[in-house]
Amino acid sequence: MREEAPKAVTAIGLALHEQIEHGLLPGGSKLPAERKLSELFSTTRITVREALLQLEAQGLIYREERRGWFVSPPRLAYNLMQRSHFHAMVSAQGRVPSTQVLSARLQPASAAVCDWLQLPALSSVIQICRVRRIDERQVLYVEHYLNPQYFPGILEFDLNQSITELYARHYDLHYGRVRFEIVPTSLPQEAAAALRVSSGSPGLRIARVNYDQHQRLIDCDLEFWRHDAIHVGVDVV
Amino acid sequence: MREEAPKAVTAIGLALHEQIEHGLLPGGSKLPAERKLSELFSTTRITVREALLQLEAQGLIYREERRGWFVSPPRLAYNLMQRSHFHAMVSAQGRVPSTQVLSARLQPASAAVCDWLQLPALSSVIQICRVRRIDERQVLYVEHYLNPQYFPGILEFDLNQSITELYARHYDLHYGRVRFEIVPTSLPQEAAAALRVSSGSPGLRIARVNYDQHQRLIDCDLEFWRHDAIHVGVDVV
Repeated sequence: MREEAPKAVTAIGLALHEQIEHGLLPGGSKLPAERKLSELFSTTRITVREALLQLEAQGLIYREERRGWFVSPPRLAYNLMQRSHFHAMVSAQGRVPSTQVLSARLQPASAAVCDWLQLPALSSVIQICRVRRIDERQVLYVEHYLNPQYFPGILEFDLNQSITELYARHYDLHYGRVRFEIVPTSLPQEAAAALRVSSGSPGLRIARVNYDQHQRLIDCDLEFWRHDAIHVGVDVV
Repeated sequence: MREEAPKAVTAIGLALHEQIEHGLLPGGSKLPAERKLSELFSTTRITVREALLQLEAQGLIYREERRGWFVSPPRLAYNLMQRSHFHAMVSAQGRVPSTQVLSARLQPASAAVCDWLQLPALSSVIQICRVRRIDERQVLYVEHYLNPQYFPGILEFDLNQSITELYARHYDLHYGRVRFEIVPTSLPQEAAAALRVSSGSPGLRIARVNYDQHQRLIDCDLEFWRHDAIHVGVDVV
């Protein structure tokens, strides 16, 4: 598949990699047009494109529809052992978080959700779909599933804010035990659309099953991250 | 990019997904040739190929050079909180682990390895490269980096066995604290070659930094997993 003038591809890739690593092309900066790059490196558009696709697969650059190629911002450090949440974690790393609710409703729970939340068949569940940004870039699409019995009236609140803080302030519920399942996979259609990438792009799926301070299974999150947006840290003591 | 008759692609994808999920096509079984599939679904080879690529990106099927498409075996459950190692973990899940040493030598440590192992500049480090299989399928390429001061003579041993057990038996060293860093990224050349996939295929990189029972930083591992071979579990209590 990747047979296009391999040495030329590698040379361009290494040159761009080095410029990015030394901060000459900081995160968020736009690369020159592919035509310009092919002039600069005295090579074909096809070779340039192949080198760019390899850097994209490594998570070093990304493209935006009709706007071109950009240098990826630093990955968010997502430490699973810290009891934090998206908003606090992003802010603590000197970046600007924002959240947008795509939908929020009570609906029949799918078999998978019944399983995760240990609900009987034909239960209802609150589904909240949100897209989350770091410095205005969409990085995370998340589906939250809440056991409705613990969250009466939650759909009346502004759900653009931190749900963790909403739980604490209005329901006196705090996360206790959390179980994470991390699977590298391609982004399904809804996630890809929300993140503005092609369906089938590589991503990281993180399913979180959350218990409260009374050991009750209260909700679960199905997170789909851009593959270039995070690295996950775990300290096992 | 993926504009090829989207409805037909989805229909084939769903049909195969369903057959796999219901166990009609068990892990390891070979799919019919693409030509046969295009007859079966009365559609073009291009549409069939597109559907297969999507299933591959989801980790449901994989291809082998010149042999065709196969159903992916179940993912290995890699629980970071359990103090286990590859051999024990795979066996406990009823599958057959095997390990092959690709190279083992004392060499100058790269800047990255000096950083991980907190070694001074121009240090030497023991590098052991291995490929690990589950039921004969290559799933993990790993580079181990050992601080040589703790492991005199280790290159004389058979390094196809569990290194964890070697540490315990011959050096009385046991892992204490472990720090994991998980990054979804494409597979670099050496990893892709060892795993027999195209360079640039999606993978999961897990870097482990390991301390011993005396809180000494003794080694680190750089693991590259096939994207379809594991799911990682973490329980935070």
